[in-house]
Amino acid sequence: MSSYEDRLVALRAQLARQRLDGFVVPLTDEHMSEYVGAYAQRLAWLTGFQGSAGSGVVLPQEAAIFVDGRYTLQVRDQVDGRHWQYVGVPQTSVAAWLGAHAPDGARIGYDPWLHTRKWVEDASAALAGKSATLVAVDTNPVDAVWPDKPAPSDARLVPHGDAFAGKSSAEKRAAMVDWLKAQGLDAVVLSALDSIAWTFNIRGQDVSRTPVALAFALLHADGTAELFVAPEKIDADVRAHLGNAVTIRDRKDFSAALADLSGKTVAVDPQRAVAAIFDAIDQAGGTIRAVRDPAVLPKAIKNATEIAGTKAAHSRDGAALCRFLHWLDAEAGKGGETEISASDRLEAYRQETGLLTDLSFDTISSSGPNGAVVHYKASEETNRPIESDTLYLVDSGGQYRDGTTDVTRTIAIGTPSAEMKRNFTLVLKGHIALATAQFPKGTRGGQLDILARQHLWAHGLDYAHGTGHGVGSFLSVHEGPQRIATYDGGDEPLAEGMIISNEPGYYKTGAYGIRIENLVLVEVRDVPGAEKPFLGFETLTLAPIDRHLVDVPIMSAAELDWLNDYHARVLAEIGPQLDRAEKAWLEQACAPIR
Amino acid sequence: MSSYEDRLVALRAQLARQRLDGFVVPLTDEHMSEYVGAYAQRLAWLTGFQGSAGSGVVLPQEAAIFVDGRYTLQVRDQVDGRHWQYVGVPQTSVAAWLGAHAPDGARIGYDPWLHTRKWVEDASAALAGKSATLVAVDTNPVDAVWPDKPAPSDARLVPHGDAFAGKSSAEKRAAMVDWLKAQGLDAVVLSALDSIAWTFNIRGQDVSRTPVALAFALLHADGTAELFVAPEKIDADVRAHLGNAVTIRDRKDFSAALADLSGKTVAVDPQRAVAAIFDAIDQAGGTIRAVRDPAVLPKAIKNATEIAGTKAAHSRDGAALCRFLHWLDAEAGKGGETEISASDRLEAYRQETGLLTDLSFDTISSSGPNGAVVHYKASEETNRPIESDTLYLVDSGGQYRDGTTDVTRTIAIGTPSAEMKRNFTLVLKGHIALATAQFPKGTRGGQLDILARQHLWAHGLDYAHGTGHGVGSFLSVHEGPQRIATYDGGDEPLAEGMIISNEPGYYKTGAYGIRIENLVLVEVRDVPGAEKPFLGFETLTLAPIDRHLVDVPIMSAAELDWLNDYHARVLAEIGPQLDRAEKAWLEQACAPIR
Repeated sequence: MSSYEDRLVALRAQLARQRLDGFVVPLTDEHMSEYVGAYAQRLAWLTGFQGSAGSGVVLPQEAAIFVDGRYTLQVRDQVDGRHWQYVGVPQTSVAAWLGAHAPDGARIGYDPWLHTRKWVEDASAALAGKSATLVAVDTNPVDAVWPDKPAPSDARLVPHGDAFAGKSSAEKRAAMVDWLKAQGLDAVVLSALDSIAWTFNIRGQDVSRTPVALAFALLHADGTAELFVAPEKIDADVRAHLGNAVTIRDRKDFSAALADLSGKTVAVDPQRAVAAIFDAIDQAGGTIRAVRDPAVLPKAIKNATEIAGTKAAHSRDGAALCRFLHWLDAEAGKGGETEISASDRLEAYRQETGLLTDLSFDTISSSGPNGAVVHYKASEETNRPIESDTLYLVDSGGQYRDGTTDVTRTIAIGTPSAEMKRNFTLVLKGHIALATAQFPKGTRGGQLDILARQHLWAHGLDYAHGTGHGVGSFLSVHEGPQRIATYDGGDEPLAEGMIISNEPGYYKTGAYGIRIENLVLVEVRDVPGAEKPFLGFETLTLAPIDRHLVDVPIMSAAELDWLNDYHARVLAEIGPQLDRAEKAWLEQACAPIR
Repeated sequence: MSSYEDRLVALRAQLARQRLDGFVVPLTDEHMSEYVGAYAQRLAWLTGFQGSAGSGVVLPQEAAIFVDGRYTLQVRDQVDGRHWQYVGVPQTSVAAWLGAHAPDGARIGYDPWLHTRKWVEDASAALAGKSATLVAVDTNPVDAVWPDKPAPSDARLVPHGDAFAGKSSAEKRAAMVDWLKAQGLDAVVLSALDSIAWTFNIRGQDVSRTPVALAFALLHADGTAELFVAPEKIDADVRAHLGNAVTIRDRKDFSAALADLSGKTVAVDPQRAVAAIFDAIDQAGGTIRAVRDPAVLPKAIKNATEIAGTKAAHSRDGAALCRFLHWLDAEAGKGGETEISASDRLEAYRQETGLLTDLSFDTISSSGPNGAVVHYKASEETNRPIESDTLYLVDSGGQYRDGTTDVTRTIAIGTPSAEMKRNFTLVLKGHIALATAQFPKGTRGGQLDILARQHLWAHGLDYAHGTGHGVGSFLSVHEGPQRIATYDGGDEPLAEGMIISNEPGYYKTGAYGIRIENLVLVEVRDVPGAEKPFLGFETLTLAPIDRHLVDVPIMSAAELDWLNDYHARVLAEIGPQLDRAEKAWLEQACAPIR
């Protein structure tokens, strides 16, 4: 296996062959996916970076890797600083850095299947000051020098039956056709993998941790649809499930199909479709309407079947997590356990449910200072023992056919310090403030974000990540359009049936990490005397919050009531799924605090 | 005096003469001012509407008046529903209504000196569906049928000395010249009256309640400036104050001066400059850079002199308000006092300071159900007695050379109901949550808004106005760019030295209104152990909050501590300015609640 230094040298030689002075390597695929298949892990191959978000830029004399606040520590561990500069986004964008660092008159390559058109415009504008140009490549130069690059997955698609989906694909597509007609559109491009999975009620195994299949789709106003997918991935079951209105075409034919849209008015999502799709429709003489993918909002708003499913999944998953927490309580104090042995044990408990199809993301099992690495993934090199008088943070989830889970617990191993308890409790108070919020219909997550941060802010502390992300129904563990994050004006109003995480945290570099994450469901509130419709949250996740870390004197009576009520619910719903010893432990873990 | 019906008939006849099918009548002036001189009160003349924000649209067969949530009740009292439809903004914009109601192919007139270019674009786009067009008029048709239209004010300008301004006009203009050069600009248009007043350290008397002068200005990169103002308004003092670098030209010559900007690159604020200014520069062959007026942010961030001034003004104004509240407590129970007699009395106390130059807005003195009319202004027709067992709401402020004040208090006359007390206390809890917030540098007001609303929301209640607006230094009582309002992504991060109001409320139509408003100053917080810079608020306004309305059991200990500490401050700072009887009353009003 070549060294990362060799790979960079090889890429620069390839750039010279392609007459390029630089190249941009994003961590995404042709679908703007957050998690990508092995074939698209170009940034990891080139740099060694194992995080889930980032970009690289290679110039003749320098190279830079761009990561956000979650990966500030991790990138320094994984990527060689002698060859790669570390740059923080969003403080410095790739475009801005290119504008400052590209040589005068440079030709900077990019793969138009891996960037949005907005990115191309911004980067082109930034380069203009240097008389440099952005050049679309036909062949990705990283692929040209990656000898053992994996092929895209050939895994079969599977139908996602109405018993889980709650609504047939035909119904979903009929609603989209109504929308196309109302908007005066001839067709819509679907390129986001989870939108395609949701629209056609199919699932796949092409991307680790997310049950989607590599595909594109075109839905026409006449009610027909074309699904572009490698033919070997389709069996008779899926073909029957899709029905006669859906034509299956090879994924390789998608570009050619776009060229047939001459004279049509076509909806394309500027955030979710890559520049190459826009370019192809433009070149064909089609008219593009840049609008949001029409699957995004209905996918986020779960129907009654999906809600019942997620509750079953959360109950099952909560039992697995409680069995793990019982094991951890019994074993962690003895020494000998590590981050990796613990996450293996947790995965085993989830497997024992008999219904797990995959984890919903790589488990973050982090001990002591590793907990401060927000998106930590234990490796043989970083694996720490679980030691006394530290905090252990575990962020994990499962993919079940009836729902996707995502939960974080922070556990005191041995005796926590007063500072750990105070900071855990500040995080918990924020978690409770958000969990108990009641707000008018139309409120956006950005308005609520401060509820989770206010107690940390009062002590001069904060956390460098969002407070909540949407979660799919046996789909992506990170799903839009709703979110709860620091105010930027772009988010979708919260609506009944949306699932979103509630996950404030606090991280002390080199010392410990704290995060408390439950998923919550947006529900309508029947408020006596209310002057307009109000919404609130029902907490879905069921697992105890470590009582040893609660600094009782700084909790209000109402906050303690919430915690005790929550623990009573956990005990009532999870207790019956446990064996005697586990249940006895859960009773202690859920005992009221007065 | 003609009836409002006659005026509408006359305007329609005039429109026919100008070959127009409709006309839009905004409530603003050539400077996009919120408060305007009598000469620009076209909407009030045409409809009778006395509010401070609104628009009218006249079509051949129908007419509509557009107001926001503050004026929903008031517009029904003041404007004849037989001739005018009432339309709520922002739910329905003028542009959207025109698109739905304009006759096919209609020619709808607008005065380009009274709209932004964005408004013109939006309205034109909305009309396009009806093949209707928006037509700029040379002569405003309202003016043509308004026989006794007042002339613009001829009041003299006065210098605003450095002892109040804290920074000379020369220094301010030098900073703007640096900005022009850094941006590669030749000149900037200043059209907002408060920006001109701030930049040149001048004040005027042309607009009721706001000490500005009708003027335009051009500032050039060579350091020279042109101030366009009616010549009769300038005396030798002002001329000397302005200095040699400032040329005074007639306000009537402003259009001609724009025509001289051929070949120049000129900054124009798209929110603050009207379409006619953009059109003139375009026609002259100038290049427009649409950017925010460079006075806006430095004007909002008060310097040490301005901060010391506002504190002196608030102490003086607080004493006047306390004398009024003492009088109200003694007299209101006797009967015989009315909204108007009370506001006259309050103005008299402010006049007795000897330093009042004007009120900072028309006093809102509202009794019982009138308190639910958010921007109520008592008239002879609406004037209510101040009666027992009601709430009295007074929102008022003064213009002093050293600062502008704005304060609202809600007072129980007689015995308040349990509901009144509960709702007052929910408002108070929100006021305190905002007053005590601590937040990282970079936080926007929209992130904080929920702090003021959360307790009302928990009971299904809310208020239909923003939570906080910026306030000028002997300038506009409503000043941008910062604000605290429901999330829309557009607001400016709060910065040290900004003044902003904290004014949650609750309004029960037909029954009562509650609002508690203090001005606060953004200050840097020195937080031990803080991981980044934090900000908070220092409350500037000093007047007791009615203890009779506090529902003590629903206040937290921390909230009671804030109230008691605030009252101790009020007593310490205002007490020494009062006579013996007033001070004795204030001691009672500020007594701690335990």
